[in-house]
Amino acid sequence: MQQIPGYDILYFGDTAHTPYGTKSSETVIGYTINNIEFLLSRGAELIVIACNTASSVATAPVLKQFSVPIFEVITPAVELAVQASKNLNFGIIGTRATITSGIYETKIIENQPQARVYSVACPLLVPLVEEGWLDKAETAMIVKKYLQPLKTRQIDTLILGCTHYPLLKKVIQRKIGKRVHLIDSSISVSNSVKAFLAANSQIDRQLGRNDHLTLFVSDVTDQFKKIAEMTLKTNITFEAVRL
Amino acid sequence: MQQIPGYDILYFGDTAHTPYGTKSSETVIGYTINNIEFLLSRGAELIVIACNTASSVATAPVLKQFSVPIFEVITPAVELAVQASKNLNFGIIGTRATITSGIYETKIIENQPQARVYSVACPLLVPLVEEGWLDKAETAMIVKKYLQPLKTRQIDTLILGCTHYPLLKKVIQRKIGKRVHLIDSSISVSNSVKAFLAANSQIDRQLGRNDHLTLFVSDVTDQFKKIAEMTLKTNITFEAVRL
Repeated sequence: MQQIPGYDILYFGDTAHTPYGTKSSETVIGYTINNIEFLLSRGAELIVIACNTASSVATAPVLKQFSVPIFEVITPAVELAVQASKNLNFGIIGTRATITSGIYETKIIENQPQARVYSVACPLLVPLVEEGWLDKAETAMIVKKYLQPLKTRQIDTLILGCTHYPLLKKVIQRKIGKRVHLIDSSISVSNSVKAFLAANSQIDRQLGRNDHLTLFVSDVTDQFKKIAEMTLKTNITFEAVRL
Repeated sequence: MQQIPGYDILYFGDTAHTPYGTKSSETVIGYTINNIEFLLSRGAELIVIACNTASSVATAPVLKQFSVPIFEVITPAVELAVQASKNLNFGIIGTRATITSGIYETKIIENQPQARVYSVACPLLVPLVEEGWLDKAETAMIVKKYLQPLKTRQIDTLILGCTHYPLLKKVIQRKIGKRVHLIDSSISVSNSVKAFLAANSQIDRQLGRNDHLTLFVSDVTDQFKKIAEMTLKTNITFEAVRL
Protein backbone atom coordinates (compact mmCIF):
# COMPACT_ATOMS: atom_id res chain seq x y z
CA MET A 1 0.00 0.00 0.00
CA GLN A 2 2.88 2.38 0.72
CA GLN A 3 5.13 1.34 -2.19
CA ILE A 4 2.49 1.08 -4.96
CA PRO A 5 -0.48 3.08 -3.69
CA GLY A 6 -3.93 3.08 -5.23
CA TYR A 7 -4.35 -0.54 -6.31
CA ASP A 8 -7.21 -2.67 -5.01
CA ILE A 9 -5.90 -5.37 -2.70
CA LEU A 10 -7.48 -8.69 -1.78
CA TYR A 11 -5.59 -9.92 1.28
CA PHE A 12 -5.99 -13.44 2.60
CA GLY A 13 -4.51 -14.45 5.97
CA ASP A 14 -4.70 -18.21 6.52
CA THR A 15 -4.98 -17.84 10.27
CA ALA A 16 -6.79 -21.16 10.77
CA HIS A 17 -3.59 -22.93 9.67
CA THR A 18 -0.75 -20.62 10.71
CA PRO A 19 2.08 -20.74 11.60
CA TYR A 20 3.40 -22.23 8.32
CA GLY A 21 7.06 -22.07 9.34
CA THR A 22 6.97 -25.13 11.60
CA LYS A 23 5.04 -27.33 9.13
CA SER A 24 6.17 -29.69 6.36
CA SER A 25 6.60 -28.66 2.71
CA GLU A 26 3.74 -30.91 1.59
CA THR A 27 1.31 -29.25 3.98
CA VAL A 28 2.45 -25.72 3.13
CA ILE A 29 2.17 -26.45 -0.61
CA GLY A 30 -1.41 -27.68 -0.13
CA TYR A 31 -2.37 -24.58 1.86
CA THR A 32 -0.73 -22.24 -0.65
CA ILE A 33 -2.59 -23.78 -3.59
CA ASN A 34 -5.91 -23.47 -1.72
CA ASN A 35 -5.16 -19.85 -0.84
CA ILE A 36 -4.36 -18.89 -4.44
CA GLU A 37 -7.48 -20.67 -5.72
CA PHE A 38 -9.52 -18.73 -3.20
CA LEU A 39 -8.03 -15.36 -4.20
CA LEU A 40 -8.52 -16.12 -7.90
CA SER A 41 -12.17 -17.03 -7.18
CA ARG A 42 -12.56 -13.56 -5.66
CA GLY A 43 -11.16 -11.87 -8.75
CA ALA A 44 -7.42 -11.53 -8.07
CA GLU A 45 -5.43 -11.01 -11.28
CA LEU A 46 -1.91 -10.95 -9.87
CA ILE A 47 -0.72 -12.91 -6.84
CA VAL A 48 1.93 -12.04 -4.26
CA ILE A 49 2.92 -14.92 -1.99
CA ALA A 50 3.63 -12.57 0.90
CA CYS A 51 5.15 -15.24 3.14
CA ASN A 52 8.73 -16.48 3.06
CA THR A 53 7.85 -20.04 4.09
CA ALA A 54 5.23 -20.45 1.35
CA SER A 55 7.56 -18.72 -1.16
CA SER A 56 10.42 -21.06 -0.19
CA VAL A 57 8.63 -24.38 -0.53
CA ALA A 58 5.57 -23.73 -2.72
CA THR A 59 6.70 -21.43 -5.55
CA ALA A 60 7.76 -24.16 -7.98
CA PRO A 61 4.56 -26.28 -7.70
CA VAL A 62 2.39 -23.16 -7.73
CA LEU A 63 4.00 -21.75 -10.91
CA LYS A 64 3.27 -25.06 -12.64
CA GLN A 65 -0.38 -24.93 -11.65
CA PHE A 66 -1.47 -21.31 -12.24
CA SER A 67 -1.09 -19.01 -15.24
CA VAL A 68 -1.60 -15.57 -13.59
CA PRO A 69 1.53 -13.56 -12.69
CA ILE A 70 2.78 -14.84 -9.32
CA PHE A 71 5.40 -13.05 -7.22
CA GLU A 72 7.30 -14.58 -4.35
CA VAL A 73 9.37 -12.74 -1.75
CA ILE A 74 12.71 -14.59 -2.06
CA THR A 75 14.09 -13.51 -5.45
CA PRO A 76 13.56 -9.73 -4.97
CA ALA A 77 15.13 -9.90 -1.49
CA VAL A 78 18.16 -11.73 -2.90
CA GLU A 79 18.56 -9.12 -5.66
CA LEU A 80 18.38 -6.27 -3.16
CA ALA A 81 20.82 -8.05 -0.81
CA VAL A 82 23.36 -8.64 -3.57
CA GLN A 83 23.21 -4.92 -4.50
CA ALA A 84 23.60 -3.92 -0.85
CA SER A 85 26.53 -6.17 0.08
CA LYS A 86 30.15 -5.12 -0.35
CA ASN A 87 31.91 -8.20 1.04
CA LEU A 88 29.34 -10.82 -0.16
CA ASN A 89 29.02 -12.32 3.32
CA PHE A 90 25.28 -12.79 3.81
CA GLY A 91 23.24 -13.74 6.86
CA ILE A 92 19.75 -15.22 6.52
CA ILE A 93 17.22 -15.58 9.31
CA GLY A 94 13.87 -17.31 8.77
CA THR A 95 11.48 -19.99 9.95
CA ARG A 96 12.65 -23.59 10.21
CA ALA A 97 10.84 -24.45 6.93
CA THR A 98 12.49 -21.57 5.03
CA ILE A 99 15.99 -22.28 6.36
CA THR A 100 15.66 -26.04 5.78
CA SER A 101 14.65 -25.39 2.15
CA GLY A 102 18.06 -23.77 1.48
CA ILE A 103 16.37 -21.49 -1.08
CA TYR A 104 18.22 -18.31 -0.09
CA GLU A 105 21.67 -19.92 -0.32
CA THR A 106 20.78 -21.44 -3.70
CA LYS A 107 19.56 -18.15 -5.14
CA ILE A 108 22.42 -16.07 -3.72
CA ILE A 109 25.06 -18.50 -5.03
CA GLU A 110 23.33 -18.58 -8.45
CA ASN A 111 23.62 -14.79 -8.51
CA GLN A 112 27.08 -14.48 -6.88
CA PRO A 113 29.01 -17.78 -6.96
CA GLN A 114 31.73 -16.44 -4.65
CA ALA A 115 29.27 -15.40 -1.89
CA ARG A 116 29.27 -16.90 1.60
CA VAL A 117 25.85 -17.47 3.15
CA TYR A 118 25.17 -18.18 6.84
CA SER A 119 21.64 -19.19 7.84
CA VAL A 120 19.87 -19.46 11.20
CA ALA A 121 16.34 -20.73 11.84
CA CYS A 122 14.57 -18.52 14.41
CA PRO A 123 11.28 -20.35 15.09
CA LEU A 124 10.35 -18.39 18.24
CA LEU A 125 10.33 -14.97 16.55
CA VAL A 126 6.94 -15.53 14.86
CA PRO A 127 5.10 -16.28 18.13
CA LEU A 128 6.90 -13.36 19.84
CA VAL A 129 5.71 -10.98 17.10
CA GLU A 130 2.19 -12.45 17.18
CA GLU A 131 2.11 -11.77 20.92
CA GLY A 132 3.12 -8.17 20.22
CA TRP A 133 6.28 -8.59 22.37
CA LEU A 134 8.23 -6.26 20.07
CA ASP A 135 10.11 -4.24 22.71
CA LYS A 136 10.35 -6.76 25.57
CA ALA A 137 13.64 -7.71 27.22
CA GLU A 138 12.84 -11.40 26.71
CA THR A 139 12.54 -10.83 22.96
CA ALA A 140 15.86 -8.98 22.85
CA MET A 141 17.49 -11.89 24.72
CA ILE A 142 16.10 -14.46 22.27
CA VAL A 143 17.06 -12.35 19.22
CA LYS A 144 20.59 -12.04 20.62
CA LYS A 145 20.82 -15.81 21.10
CA TYR A 146 19.65 -16.53 17.55
CA LEU A 147 22.01 -13.95 16.00
CA GLN A 148 25.07 -15.10 18.00
CA PRO A 149 26.31 -17.56 15.32
CA LEU A 150 26.13 -14.76 12.69
CA LYS A 151 28.06 -12.23 14.80
CA THR A 152 31.42 -13.92 14.15
CA ARG A 153 30.87 -14.24 10.39
CA GLN A 154 31.62 -10.66 9.22
CA ILE A 155 28.30 -10.47 7.41
CA ASP A 156 27.50 -7.02 6.04
CA THR A 157 23.95 -7.87 4.89
CA LEU A 158 21.22 -9.73 6.77
CA ILE A 159 18.04 -10.86 4.99
CA LEU A 160 14.96 -10.79 7.23
CA GLY A 161 13.65 -13.98 5.65
CA CYS A 162 10.21 -13.98 7.25
CA THR A 163 7.48 -11.39 6.81
CA HIS A 164 7.09 -11.09 10.60
CA TYR A 165 10.67 -10.01 11.23
CA PRO A 166 10.54 -6.39 9.97
CA LEU A 167 8.40 -5.72 13.07
CA LEU A 168 11.54 -6.64 15.07
CA LYS A 169 13.85 -4.55 12.89
CA LYS A 170 14.96 -2.27 15.73
CA VAL A 171 16.06 -5.01 18.11
CA ILE A 172 17.59 -7.07 15.28
CA GLN A 173 19.62 -4.05 14.13
CA ARG A 174 20.78 -3.40 17.71
CA LYS A 175 21.87 -7.00 18.25
CA ILE A 176 23.54 -7.63 14.88
CA GLY A 177 25.27 -4.23 14.88
CA LYS A 178 24.43 -1.00 13.11
CA ARG A 179 26.84 -1.54 10.20
CA VAL A 180 24.92 -4.58 8.94
CA HIS A 181 22.42 -3.80 6.19
CA LEU A 182 18.97 -5.32 6.87
CA ILE A 183 16.91 -6.48 3.87
CA ASP A 184 13.13 -6.29 4.27
CA SER A 185 11.45 -8.60 1.75
CA SER A 186 8.17 -6.66 1.83
CA ILE A 187 9.87 -3.64 0.26
CA SER A 188 11.81 -5.61 -2.35
CA VAL A 189 8.76 -7.61 -3.51
CA SER A 190 6.68 -4.41 -3.81
CA ASN A 191 9.38 -2.86 -5.97
CA SER A 192 9.46 -5.97 -8.08
CA VAL A 193 5.67 -5.81 -8.65
CA LYS A 194 5.98 -2.10 -9.42
CA ALA A 195 8.65 -2.73 -12.08
CA PHE A 196 6.60 -5.56 -13.57
CA LEU A 197 3.51 -3.37 -13.89
CA ALA A 198 5.52 -0.54 -15.43
CA ALA A 199 6.82 -2.97 -18.06
CA ASN A 200 3.45 -4.68 -18.65
CA SER A 201 0.95 -1.88 -19.12
CA GLN A 202 -1.72 -4.17 -20.65
CA ILE A 203 -1.85 -6.10 -17.33
CA ASP A 204 -1.55 -2.92 -15.28
CA ARG A 205 -4.58 -1.38 -17.03
CA GLN A 206 -6.76 -4.38 -16.02
CA LEU A 207 -6.13 -3.92 -12.30
CA GLY A 208 -8.63 -2.09 -10.09
CA ARG A 209 -7.30 1.21 -8.74
CA ASN A 210 -9.93 2.33 -6.26
CA ASP A 211 -7.54 2.05 -3.32
CA HIS A 212 -9.76 -0.66 -1.89
CA LEU A 213 -8.48 -3.13 0.70
CA THR A 214 -10.47 -6.32 1.36
CA LEU A 215 -9.26 -8.50 4.23
CA PHE A 216 -10.11 -12.20 4.35
CA VAL A 217 -8.98 -14.55 7.12
CA SER A 218 -9.67 -18.23 7.72
CA ASP A 219 -9.94 -17.67 11.50
CA VAL A 220 -10.89 -14.43 13.26
CA THR A 221 -9.37 -13.81 16.71
CA ASP A 222 -9.22 -10.65 18.81
CA GLN A 223 -5.44 -10.96 18.97
CA PHE A 224 -5.04 -11.04 15.20
CA LYS A 225 -7.40 -8.05 14.83
CA LYS A 226 -5.38 -6.17 17.47
CA ILE A 227 -2.03 -6.79 15.76
CA ALA A 228 -3.48 -5.99 12.31
CA GLU A 229 -4.92 -2.69 13.55
CA MET A 230 -1.61 -1.85 15.23
CA THR A 231 0.19 -2.50 11.92
CA LEU A 232 -2.30 -0.81 9.56
CA LYS A 233 -2.99 2.00 12.08
CA THR A 234 -6.74 1.96 11.32
CA ASN A 235 -9.90 0.10 12.34
CA ILE A 236 -10.53 -2.87 10.13
CA THR A 237 -13.12 -5.56 9.50
CA PHE A 238 -12.34 -9.05 8.33
CA GLU A 239 -14.41 -11.36 6.23
CA ALA A 240 -14.13 -14.85 7.69
CA VAL A 241 -13.64 -17.60 5.11
CA ARG A 242 -13.64 -21.33 5.74
CA LEU A 243 -11.30 -23.09 3.30
CA MET B 1 0.39 -45.49 29.08
CA GLN B 2 1.95 -45.20 32.56
CA GLN B 3 -1.29 -44.76 34.53
CA ILE B 4 -3.46 -47.41 32.79
CA PRO B 5 -0.99 -49.72 31.05
CA GLY B 6 -1.88 -52.38 28.50
CA TYR B 7 -4.69 -50.70 26.55
CA ASP B 8 -4.45 -50.14 22.81
CA ILE B 9 -4.13 -46.45 22.05
CA LEU B 10 -4.98 -44.62 18.84
CA TYR B 11 -3.30 -41.23 19.14
CA PHE B 12 -4.06 -38.41 16.74
CA GLY B 13 -1.98 -35.22 16.73
CA ASP B 14 -3.53 -32.52 14.56
CA THR B 15 -0.16 -31.03 13.68
CA ALA B 16 -1.35 -29.52 10.38
CA HIS B 17 -3.56 -27.14 12.40
CA THR B 18 -1.77 -26.65 15.72
CA PRO B 19 -1.40 -24.59 17.82
CA TYR B 20 -5.08 -24.52 18.87
CA GLY B 21 -4.59 -22.14 21.79
CA THR B 22 -4.33 -18.99 19.67
CA LYS B 23 -7.35 -19.81 17.48
CA SER B 24 -11.06 -19.01 17.82
CA SER B 25 -13.60 -21.33 19.50
CA GLU B 26 -15.44 -21.93 16.21
CA THR B 27 -12.27 -23.13 14.51
CA VAL B 28 -11.19 -25.32 17.44
CA ILE B 29 -14.69 -26.90 17.65
CA GLY B 30 -14.55 -27.73 13.93
CA TYR B 31 -11.11 -29.33 14.26
CA THR B 32 -12.11 -31.31 17.37
CA ILE B 33 -15.20 -32.76 15.68
CA ASN B 34 -13.10 -33.80 12.65
CA ASN B 35 -10.49 -35.38 14.92
CA ILE B 36 -13.05 -37.41 16.85
CA GLU B 37 -14.74 -38.56 13.62
CA PHE B 38 -11.35 -39.69 12.35
CA LEU B 39 -10.53 -41.66 15.53
CA LEU B 40 -13.98 -43.31 15.54
CA SER B 41 -13.46 -44.28 11.87
CA ARG B 42 -10.27 -46.05 12.98
CA GLY B 43 -12.10 -47.99 15.68
CA ALA B 44 -11.75 -45.86 18.82
CA GLU B 45 -14.38 -46.77 21.45
CA LEU B 46 -13.56 -44.18 24.08
CA ILE B 47 -12.24 -40.69 23.43
CA VAL B 48 -9.90 -38.54 25.54
CA ILE B 49 -9.68 -34.92 24.41
CA ALA B 50 -6.07 -34.65 25.57
CA CYS B 51 -5.82 -30.91 25.00
CA ASN B 52 -6.96 -28.19 27.38
CA THR B 53 -7.93 -25.74 24.62
CA ALA B 54 -10.14 -28.26 22.82
CA SER B 55 -11.56 -29.44 26.18
CA SER B 56 -12.35 -25.84 27.18
CA VAL B 57 -14.22 -24.75 24.09
CA ALA B 58 -15.36 -27.93 22.32
CA THR B 59 -16.59 -30.31 25.04
CA ALA B 60 -20.23 -29.13 25.07
CA PRO B 61 -20.78 -29.29 21.27
CA VAL B 62 -18.87 -32.58 21.03
CA LEU B 63 -20.93 -34.27 23.77
CA LYS B 64 -24.08 -33.32 21.85
CA GLN B 65 -22.79 -34.89 18.67
CA PHE B 66 -21.20 -38.19 19.72
CA SER B 67 -22.49 -41.05 21.87
CA VAL B 68 -19.21 -42.82 22.82
CA PRO B 69 -17.72 -42.02 26.26
CA ILE B 70 -15.74 -38.78 25.93
CA PHE B 71 -13.30 -37.49 28.55
CA GLU B 72 -11.94 -33.98 28.75
CA VAL B 73 -9.02 -32.79 30.85
CA ILE B 74 -10.65 -29.90 32.76
CA THR B 75 -13.04 -31.61 35.21
CA PRO B 76 -10.54 -34.19 36.57
CA ALA B 77 -7.92 -31.45 37.05
CA VAL B 78 -10.42 -29.31 38.95
CA GLU B 79 -11.34 -32.24 41.22
CA LEU B 80 -7.71 -32.99 41.97
CA ALA B 81 -6.98 -29.29 42.59
CA VAL B 82 -9.88 -28.92 45.01
CA GLN B 83 -8.63 -31.95 46.96
CA ALA B 84 -5.09 -30.57 47.02
CA SER B 85 -5.86 -27.02 48.12
CA LYS B 86 -6.04 -25.96 51.77
CA ASN B 87 -6.75 -22.23 51.34
CA LEU B 88 -8.87 -22.48 48.15
CA ASN B 89 -6.74 -19.89 46.36
CA PHE B 90 -6.17 -21.34 42.90
CA GLY B 91 -3.91 -20.26 40.06
CA ILE B 92 -4.61 -21.31 36.48
CA ILE B 93 -2.19 -21.04 33.57
CA GLY B 94 -3.21 -21.95 30.01
CA THR B 95 -3.42 -20.85 26.41
CA ARG B 96 -5.27 -17.67 25.50
CA ALA B 97 -8.28 -19.71 24.27
CA THR B 98 -8.48 -21.74 27.52
CA ILE B 99 -8.14 -18.70 29.79
CA THR B 100 -10.62 -16.64 27.73
CA SER B 101 -13.19 -19.45 28.01
CA GLY B 102 -13.25 -19.04 31.82
CA ILE B 103 -13.95 -22.78 32.11
CA TYR B 104 -11.61 -23.43 35.05
CA GLU B 105 -13.06 -20.58 37.16
CA THR B 106 -16.60 -21.76 36.38
CA LYS B 107 -15.90 -25.37 37.35
CA ILE B 108 -13.90 -24.51 40.49
CA ILE B 109 -16.59 -22.10 41.74
CA GLU B 110 -19.30 -24.70 41.01
CA ASN B 111 -17.35 -27.14 43.18
CA GLN B 112 -16.20 -24.64 45.86
CA PRO B 113 -18.26 -21.43 45.81
CA GLN B 114 -15.93 -19.68 48.26
CA ALA B 115 -12.79 -20.32 46.14
CA ARG B 116 -10.70 -17.53 44.62
CA VAL B 117 -9.33 -18.23 41.15
CA TYR B 118 -6.56 -16.25 39.42
CA SER B 119 -5.86 -16.97 35.75
CA VAL B 120 -3.03 -16.03 33.41
CA ALA B 121 -2.78 -16.76 29.68
CA CYS B 122 0.76 -17.90 28.75
CA PRO B 123 0.69 -18.10 24.94
CA LEU B 124 4.47 -18.33 24.46
CA LEU B 125 4.92 -21.49 26.53
CA VAL B 126 3.59 -23.81 23.80
CA PRO B 127 6.11 -22.63 21.17
CA LEU B 128 8.91 -22.77 23.79
CA VAL B 129 8.05 -26.40 24.58
CA GLU B 130 7.70 -27.27 20.90
CA GLU B 131 11.20 -25.87 20.35
CA GLY B 132 12.45 -28.10 23.18
CA TRP B 133 13.68 -25.03 25.12
CA LEU B 134 12.81 -26.69 28.44
CA ASP B 135 15.88 -25.70 30.46
CA LYS B 136 16.87 -22.44 28.75
CA ALA B 137 17.39 -19.18 30.66
CA GLU B 138 15.04 -17.38 28.24
CA THR B 139 12.24 -19.84 29.09
CA ALA B 140 12.79 -19.33 32.82
CA MET B 141 12.61 -15.56 32.31
CA ILE B 142 9.32 -15.81 30.38
CA VAL B 143 7.82 -18.26 32.92
CA LYS B 144 8.75 -15.86 35.71
CA LYS B 145 7.10 -12.95 33.89
CA TYR B 146 3.88 -14.91 33.33
CA LEU B 147 3.72 -16.15 36.93
CA GLN B 148 4.43 -12.72 38.46
CA PRO B 149 0.73 -11.75 38.86
CA LEU B 150 0.07 -15.06 40.68
CA LYS B 151 2.98 -14.65 43.11
CA THR B 152 1.16 -12.02 45.20
CA ARG B 153 -2.09 -14.00 45.40
CA GLN B 154 -1.23 -16.58 48.08
CA ILE B 155 -2.25 -19.45 45.80
CA ASP B 156 -1.44 -22.89 47.19
CA THR B 157 -2.47 -24.81 44.05
CA LEU B 158 -1.61 -24.10 40.42
CA ILE B 159 -3.35 -25.94 37.58
CA LEU B 160 -1.10 -26.52 34.56
CA GLY B 161 -3.99 -25.89 32.20
CA CYS B 162 -2.28 -26.94 28.98
CA THR B 163 -0.95 -30.38 28.11
CA HIS B 164 2.40 -28.88 27.10
CA TYR B 165 3.13 -27.36 30.50
CA PRO B 166 4.05 -30.49 32.50
CA LEU B 167 7.23 -30.52 30.38
CA LEU B 168 8.06 -27.19 32.09
CA LYS B 169 7.12 -28.44 35.57
CA LYS B 170 10.59 -27.94 37.03
CA VAL B 171 10.96 -24.30 36.04
CA ILE B 172 7.33 -23.51 36.89
CA GLN B 173 7.78 -25.03 40.37
CA ARG B 174 10.97 -23.04 40.89
CA LYS B 175 9.37 -19.75 39.84
CA ILE B 176 6.02 -20.13 41.64
CA GLY B 177 7.65 -21.49 44.83
CA LYS B 178 8.04 -24.99 46.17
CA ARG B 179 5.03 -24.81 48.53
CA VAL B 180 2.57 -24.45 45.65
CA HIS B 181 0.97 -27.71 44.55
CA LEU B 182 1.11 -28.23 40.75
CA ILE B 183 -1.80 -30.06 39.09
CA ASP B 184 -0.93 -32.03 35.96
CA SER B 185 -4.09 -32.67 33.93
CA SER B 186 -2.61 -35.69 32.15
CA ILE B 187 -2.48 -37.60 35.44
CA SER B 188 -5.94 -36.56 36.61
CA VAL B 189 -7.64 -37.45 33.33
CA SER B 190 -5.93 -40.87 33.25
CA ASN B 191 -7.19 -41.55 36.77
CA SER B 192 -10.64 -40.51 35.71
CA VAL B 193 -10.62 -42.94 32.76
CA LYS B 194 -9.29 -45.67 35.07
CA ALA B 195 -12.15 -45.14 37.55
CA PHE B 196 -14.71 -45.11 34.71
CA LEU B 197 -13.43 -48.41 33.31
CA ALA B 198 -13.41 -50.02 36.76
CA ALA B 199 -17.07 -49.01 37.19
CA ASN B 200 -18.12 -49.98 33.63
CA SER B 201 -16.72 -53.44 33.06
CA GLN B 202 -18.92 -54.11 30.01
CA ILE B 203 -17.18 -51.22 28.21
CA ASP B 204 -13.80 -52.14 29.63
CA ARG B 205 -14.08 -55.69 28.23
CA GLN B 206 -14.61 -54.34 24.68
CA LEU B 207 -11.33 -52.43 24.65
CA GLY B 208 -8.22 -53.90 23.01
CA ARG B 209 -5.45 -54.70 25.49
CA ASN B 210 -2.48 -55.62 23.34
CA ASP B 211 -0.45 -52.65 24.56
CA HIS B 212 -0.47 -51.30 21.02
CA LEU B 213 0.21 -47.62 20.28
CA THR B 214 -0.74 -46.21 16.85
CA LEU B 215 0.33 -42.65 16.15
CA PHE B 216 -1.48 -40.56 13.54
CA VAL B 217 -0.56 -36.98 12.70
CA SER B 218 -1.98 -34.58 10.12
CA ASP B 219 1.50 -33.19 9.36
CA VAL B 220 4.83 -34.98 9.84
CA THR B 221 7.86 -32.83 10.65
CA ASP B 222 11.30 -33.81 11.92
CA GLN B 223 10.86 -31.46 14.88
CA PHE B 224 7.61 -33.12 16.00
CA LYS B 225 9.20 -36.57 15.64
CA LYS B 226 12.19 -35.42 17.70
CA ILE B 227 10.05 -34.06 20.54
CA ALA B 228 7.76 -37.13 20.48
CA GLU B 229 10.74 -39.50 20.69
CA MET B 230 12.22 -37.42 23.51
CA THR B 231 8.93 -37.69 25.41
CA LEU B 232 8.15 -41.36 24.71
CA LYS B 233 11.84 -42.35 25.01
CA THR B 234 11.60 -44.70 22.03
CA ASN B 235 11.83 -44.67 18.22
CA ILE B 236 8.44 -44.12 16.65
CA THR B 237 6.75 -44.07 13.28
CA PHE B 238 3.80 -41.87 12.41
CA GLU B 239 1.02 -42.51 9.96
CA ALA B 240 0.31 -39.26 8.11
CA VAL B 241 -3.38 -38.47 7.70
CA ARG B 242 -4.85 -35.62 5.66
CA LEU B 243 -8.10 -34.41 7.27
